[in-house]
Amino acid sequence: MASRSLKVPVSRVHGAGGSTPRNAPGAVAAEDEVVVEEPLEIRVNGAPAAITMRTPGDDLDLAAGFLWTEGVIDGPDDLRAMATVAENVVDVVLAEGVPAARARTADRALYATSSCGICGKASLERVRSASGRVVGWSPSDEVVLVLAERLREAQPTFTRTGGLHGAALFDAGGRIVLAREDVGRHNALDKLLGARLRADALPLDGLGVVTSSRAGFELVQKCAAAGIGVLVALGAPSSLAIDAARHVGLHLWAWTRSDRATRYA
Amino acid sequence: MASRSLKVPVSRVHGAGGSTPRNAPGAVAAEDEVVVEEPLEIRVNGAPAAITMRTPGDDLDLAAGFLWTEGVIDGPDDLRAMATVAENVVDVVLAEGVPAARARTADRALYATSSCGICGKASLERVRSASGRVVGWSPSDEVVLVLAERLREAQPTFTRTGGLHGAALFDAGGRIVLAREDVGRHNALDKLLGARLRADALPLDGLGVVTSSRAGFELVQKCAAAGIGVLVALGAPSSLAIDAARHVGLHLWAWTRSDRATRYA
Repeated sequence: MASRSLKVPVSRVHGAGGSTPRNAPGAVAAEDEVVVEEPLEIRVNGAPAAITMRTPGDDLDLAAGFLWTEGVIDGPDDLRAMATVAENVVDVVLAEGVPAARARTADRALYATSSCGICGKASLERVRSASGRVVGWSPSDEVVLVLAERLREAQPTFTRTGGLHGAALFDAGGRIVLAREDVGRHNALDKLLGARLRADALPLDGLGVVTSSRAGFELVQKCAAAGIGVLVALGAPSSLAIDAARHVGLHLWAWTRSDRATRYA
Repeated sequence: MASRSLKVPVSRVHGAGGSTPRNAPGAVAAEDEVVVEEPLEIRVNGAPAAITMRTPGDDLDLAAGFLWTEGVIDGPDDLRAMATVAENVVDVVLAEGVPAARARTADRALYATSSCGICGKASLERVRSASGRVVGWSPSDEVVLVLAERLREAQPTFTRTGGLHGAALFDAGGRIVLAREDVGRHNALDKLLGARLRADALPLDGLGVVTSSRAGFELVQKCAAAGIGVLVALGAPSSLAIDAARHVGLHLWAWTRSDRATRYA
């Protein structure tokens, strides 16, 4: 497996700022562990479809999840084969009859395909089309409040580097079913959902997603595309994410800590 | 000016978790202020060039900064005119002789133009081409340690919503020269740099950028394209960001707080 972190020489500075004065300013040579970030090119039937900056590892899951949550494929049957064909390049062969043309717009985000140009309404229309897949359920308050801690426990690389977003599937009992990490929050979610797709472990009824990041529109859109009914974010929500969650009937929590959380939809 | 935040009804849950037990779990209706996120389409000479999810406001700065840091334009003289032509749509008319074709690949990130496909080397080559523009200088430890607080003071919307990334230009004395906010960290930087470009306030010699976010590769690339020699991040760095910074001679700090910081390049 490709390395997700590496050690680099650094120089640390400690100052007298803040409320806990320490030694006077001065730099100390040290070593630090940082998260690896490299580009991945996703090809569909041999043609470049998308490029994303990601942390190496779970590349096939990432490619499968990306194509699924961006609407290029509808499920595992649409995948004929996929393989790493060069360093940082994954090629996906679609099943017969699946239009590869859909992949050409995937990397320009979902809006590029909307005929009315670009507006919030268009993006919401696209999300609404996914609303039939979302199976509504709602976790208990106790489960929501335990998720921040459970996600952190499931993120080994974050603990060392502090530079990785995490995404995990959890069940009604608050158990972490599967967790993935990546330097990008969208990638962490795509790796998570792609792993289930490739294992043919669908649908995802009764499962929710907890993310270490903010709840932006695209995370809600990706969850809806995968039929996920609950999204719990440790960070802040955006207005469009809340609108989208309400449209598809997805339960959205944000600012989630062990002693408090806020429900936005 | 478009609103950057709005109020939404929410339901707050407080639990007994953590080290400060409070009341038993239970939900309370409340109102919360969230950051606005909407798509912006950037057109070049009338043709769609890029779409980004952004916080409304400073849209012309964002468009100018994006086109600059992605290599579509080289400076203010390459811009003939720009205007908001519809809700969430900005059209940019390039000066005569500037190839609009460059814009067609800008939204696929910088890698789409590299002939060798996709690899870290290709992306570093592109960054290296910008190295001639970076004017090296290094802030004192005291200045680095004061930047987290100064940036926070310059982010009014973050204080209310917690959902915005900030980017600011600072000088050798640690003074904030200009600050911008956005739901996306790349956008906050593009707004900042685009504002200076549009004001014809270039070059940016002797100024650094402080960002509230992680230091990813693309932030280093954008700084290098604008000739910025110092990037101070409050969050974690990535391996490729460190490599890129070293190649162009950009001084990179991360994990910056008021009492400590780490220098990576």
